[in-house]
Amino acid sequence: MIITVSRSADLGQVRRTLAGLGLWVAAPERRDDGDTLLVVQSSSTSIELDLIRAVPGVVGISKPESAHPRVDGHGPVAVVGKRSVSRDEPILISGPCSVESPEQIERIARSLREKGVTFLRGGAFKPRTSPYAFQGRGPDALSWLRAAADACGMAVVTEVLSEHDVSTVAEHAEVLQIGSRNMHNYALLKAVGKVGKPVLLKRSMAATVEEWLLAGEYLLSHGSGSVMFCERGVRTFDETTRNLLDLGAVALLAHVHNLPVIVDPSHGTGRRDLIVPLARAALAAGAAGVMIEVHDRPEEAQSDAPQALHPDALAPVLSSLRGAS
Amino acid sequence: MIITVSRSADLGQVRRTLAGLGLWVAAPERRDDGDTLLVVQSSSTSIELDLIRAVPGVVGISKPESAHPRVDGHGPVAVVGKRSVSRDEPILISGPCSVESPEQIERIARSLREKGVTFLRGGAFKPRTSPYAFQGRGPDALSWLRAAADACGMAVVTEVLSEHDVSTVAEHAEVLQIGSRNMHNYALLKAVGKVGKPVLLKRSMAATVEEWLLAGEYLLSHGSGSVMFCERGVRTFDETTRNLLDLGAVALLAHVHNLPVIVDPSHGTGRRDLIVPLARAALAAGAAGVMIEVHDRPEEAQSDAPQALHPDALAPVLSSLRGAS
Amino acid sequence: MIITVSRSADLGQVRRTLAGLGLWVAAPERRDDGDTLLVVQSSSTSIELDLIRAVPGVVGISKPESAHPRVDGHGPVAVVGKRSVSRDEPILISGPCSVESPEQIERIARSLREKGVTFLRGGAFKPRTSPYAFQGRGPDALSWLRAAADACGMAVVTEVLSEHDVSTVAEHAEVLQIGSRNMHNYALLKAVGKVGKPVLLKRSMAATVEEWLLAGEYLLSHGSGSVMFCERGVRTFDETTRNLLDLGAVALLAHVHNLPVIVDPSHGTGRRDLIVPLARAALAAGAAGVMIEVHDRPEEAQSDAPQALHPDALAPVLSSLRGAS
Amino acid sequence: MIITVSRSADLGQVRRTLAGLGLWVAAPERRDDGDTLLVVQSSSTSIELDLIRAVPGVVGISKPESAHPRVDGHGPVAVVGKRSVSRDEPILISGPCSVESPEQIERIARSLREKGVTFLRGGAFKPRTSPYAFQGRGPDALSWLRAAADACGMAVVTEVLSEHDVSTVAEHAEVLQIGSRNMHNYALLKAVGKVGKPVLLKRSMAATVEEWLLAGEYLLSHGSGSVMFCERGVRTFDETTRNLLDLGAVALLAHVHNLPVIVDPSHGTGRRDLIVPLARAALAAGAAGVMIEVHDRPEEAQSDAPQALHPDALAPVLSSLRGAS
Repeated sequence: MIITVSRSADLGQVRRTLAGLGLWVAAPERRDDGDTLLVVQSSSTSIELDLIRAVPGVVGISKPESAHPRVDGHGPVAVVGKRSVSRDEPILISGPCSVESPEQIERIARSLREKGVTFLRGGAFKPRTSPYAFQGRGPDALSWLRAAADACGMAVVTEVLSEHDVSTVAEHAEVLQIGSRNMHNYALLKAVGKVGKPVLLKRSMAATVEEWLLAGEYLLSHGSGSVMFCERGVRTFDETTRNLLDLGAVALLAHVHNLPVIVDPSHGTGRRDLIVPLARAALAAGAAGVMIEVHDRPEEAQSDAPQALHPDALAPVLSSLRGAS
Repeated sequence: MIITVSRSADLGQVRRTLAGLGLWVAAPERRDDGDTLLVVQSSSTSIELDLIRAVPGVVGISKPESAHPRVDGHGPVAVVGKRSVSRDEPILISGPCSVESPEQIERIARSLREKGVTFLRGGAFKPRTSPYAFQGRGPDALSWLRAAADACGMAVVTEVLSEHDVSTVAEHAEVLQIGSRNMHNYALLKAVGKVGKPVLLKRSMAATVEEWLLAGEYLLSHGSGSVMFCERGVRTFDETTRNLLDLGAVALLAHVHNLPVIVDPSHGTGRRDLIVPLARAALAAGAAGVMIEVHDRPEEAQSDAPQALHPDALAPVLSSLRGAS
Repeated sequence: MIITVSRSADLGQVRRTLAGLGLWVAAPERRDDGDTLLVVQSSSTSIELDLIRAVPGVVGISKPESAHPRVDGHGPVAVVGKRSVSRDEPILISGPCSVESPEQIERIARSLREKGVTFLRGGAFKPRTSPYAFQGRGPDALSWLRAAADACGMAVVTEVLSEHDVSTVAEHAEVLQIGSRNMHNYALLKAVGKVGKPVLLKRSMAATVEEWLLAGEYLLSHGSGSVMFCERGVRTFDETTRNLLDLGAVALLAHVHNLPVIVDPSHGTGRRDLIVPLARAALAAGAAGVMIEVHDRPEEAQSDAPQALHPDALAPVLSSLRGAS
Repeated sequence: MIITVSRSADLGQVRRTLAGLGLWVAAPERRDDGDTLLVVQSSSTSIELDLIRAVPGVVGISKPESAHPRVDGHGPVAVVGKRSVSRDEPILISGPCSVESPEQIERIARSLREKGVTFLRGGAFKPRTSPYAFQGRGPDALSWLRAAADACGMAVVTEVLSEHDVSTVAEHAEVLQIGSRNMHNYALLKAVGKVGKPVLLKRSMAATVEEWLLAGEYLLSHGSGSVMFCERGVRTFDETTRNLLDLGAVALLAHVHNLPVIVDPSHGTGRRDLIVPLARAALAAGAAGVMIEVHDRPEEAQSDAPQALHPDALAPVLSSLRGAS
């Protein structure tokens, strides 16, 4: 946004007034005609344009068209079957990192369902940094996951990695997950968009907020009905947590962009001892839900065991969810 | 921490068991004698060493001495005069970015005190990126700040920038603030430590958690009684918030290092529309308090007006504080 | 790497000797048996293990197995048809960001070929942050690119975005490019690996060096013959250049890992006024080649025109290349 | 910079023409009066404003006043006594991390002087992350350093950490160094500026280019005669080098801002095996000099031994310097 200030105005006074309204403006630029242009920075508070127009001395405002009109029109609710997901009705998505056997996923699903969890996650295809690491049990795991969810009356959230697997995953899941490593994989976004199902879109580890929203626009413009934006931590210079969970971006999407945001404190911290406090912080920041990895026998887990909570450890998160809704 | 696994153990089993306990271990390293060494990564869950010793096949554990013994012994409470600051008794520190006049600071102090705020912040010396920007009103502002606090029965928190000003600031304030730009200014840390007063130590915009703790060690080893660690956001690649507030680090210091942490969502986001949700998120993550900039006439403020809340906007934060304590 | 120091050694002396050899070691960890373990940090100079074994007091060294044995065995030369690419025979890869018409690409190809350039790049499929931006001319552009290269006797380097396009791209190009946004797209890496052709693998904007090498391992373990690692800048907090070109990583891959590295100063800086000095710096750091976007009519270009050099501006780079080879 | 485009112009054509000139412009903003404003991004090529004014349809350009007029007027040469330092006359600054004894510094100084090095560096006051680490030999070391330099006819470059030490350091050194941890220490910048001597100003590990230039403005506006800007690497997410050396920023300061830049590849990489290639890359990028830590007996060094080269290893750098000048 750029504000034009009349050459006859008291520029200092105008700038103080704009700052008083919550706007950070860049250094003033005087045009040849004597008017001054002020670029409003993107970290400014979002306010009604009429408040700016009313400032004496302001003679013009311009604003670029949004690059993501469908995301802007999405609204705060994601619809998954008959369920609504929003800040007012926040959810817990839980399950193991990997679906390892029919028994494992059914056992965990039952345990979660008893506690009131209705969204079951589990990985069938796993994106691994090393080509030699466990890559998931594939299509079989999808069937086991579906069966477990059906047995318990739960909805399935699971990741799709390859364009070739989109239709199979869509047959087995209520929500397709785009992993953080694929947020910029536009071929996959298009393919997933085309099946029209709700999507959980993880933020890439170094994506700006704008790039994340544009990835959502790819999905919506190709056919997705609902998108849940999932923050899982960005990459930075400290090693005491696995990633840096950006709850400021969560609050921004929830309160300013009015979108449903899910927070993944499991990947966001990588530490069991921090997952619960950050899950509660996420809900306080405005999340429409949290996604937490669990395992009832973590010493048998084939991936990400160190960050898996026992299902029983979810109690304080469930209590916060009930408080929020 | 390094775990030694016997050459006769089932290494795969040992690794799964350790992962099951919450430990991320690096790739195994086999020694010439056949034993295997496993380096435990710093993003691992903090657990009792005895749990590791009890794992069959583990024949040794080693752990480096802490580089910050005084910080480790600090404990969760900061003592400021007769007040205790901790997660169990969280506080709100509030006031204007700059102390601009005796009237301004007294007016704001009264407004805050009426709402129950007992810690008054305000800048007399301002660290500014440009040498031509307003640098604060200096020693006069210190006197005005002290007078306003005394009139209202509040404690003063204010920043010191120069070694030459340490004693003057110490005469006027209950708590000396080290700003983020000076966290690595060891000459200043030593000088502030020597006066023995409580310190609010802001994290540098690119400091690791370990460096932040070591800055606290500088203070404690030179004489400070209490240190409150203040998270105000780190620098990263996104511009939609002024900084990226690292609530994972807050939870880590609060729950694992057992330290009092204050969160500054004003600098952490720079946006009025996000300050309150992030203040509440900070308390949920384990903060012992929040520091929020206010101004009752932001259009007259001489610095950081865009992020100044009106004192009346603090109500939901005060409500969260009462809920927490 | 972990070094074990005997309980009877002078630990301070051992540590000084190791530092003298170029090793950064973490804080010492004393085991129950009295020996001390020293973790060597990954930013240490690479030295022969025998130099460490010879240090009095050192009783053991352990080193994890490499996670990327095929990359370690790759060697400094990439073979592209009959050509060898290495630090000793560095190359210039050049061409437009997008292939826009048969005339455009042939005109530019001829201009480059006259100057001695033998690798022609050009985008047929473009990864764009916005779904509404120009996405490339697709399969037609591949044909135009191939025809222009054939007419001039040049090799083709072009990006593939979708698993579905791998075979078509492989039919038209000597070198398949994996873009930075797809470095973590393991489904695509596997598909590209299977066609067995040389690959130019761009580093993701936030990939560690280890992750980049592991992406190369995906390619080599699935069938690629040669991999050229391409540095194009990482994402960070400054905006005066489009990305931050990491020539330290280039030197590391070239001099320590002994791999062929191509540097892309066009994306690395985004600025015409810095491309040539950084291309020369890249060659000095150890690059096996540089990739530079050109356009002879940048005012007609459909993407990335601001960073396109005119082909005539390549002269000083070609002169550096001749000096290096 | 903001470009105003007439409502009657072909906006698409104007944007392509501006892109063709090397400018990245943000999304267009249409004003109420129908004209369009285009914000030129800071990663654009620096070009003459007249080239923009000449574009048909452009009806106005505005540019903010520079925030650092003294830096803009500094020019490419730093004057140190009778010596000139610039890209045309690049220098090598060398010496040990710490001045440890009169013998050590004199021995190293003689060795360097024989090779043609005329700027001697050495630390008397050391900024250390831990309060318990070696903090330098203080004022004694300053005398030893001065004596060694005098004996060899060299100029002294040494760091000052405390406002209290500025005058003492200024008595002993031709060039005062501001370390990266103190780039934002404005009290120190003011004190150092006042003594009027040339300054080597290291970039903070997370400083933007603009903040670095503004720190230079602090120095020049308080009295410094010459400032040499020193790049030593920024902090980021990879650990295989100690820091990430930003040679793009070096080229920018050298070629666009026309300033003398010194590069410190010792801290920039922390690895002996990469220092020489990066020193040569720095000179190719436009540096006016390089600063390299050496020690003839690194196994006796009290700090940073792993990155100390032997003086004999400087030969290829000296050869590049002779080629450049």
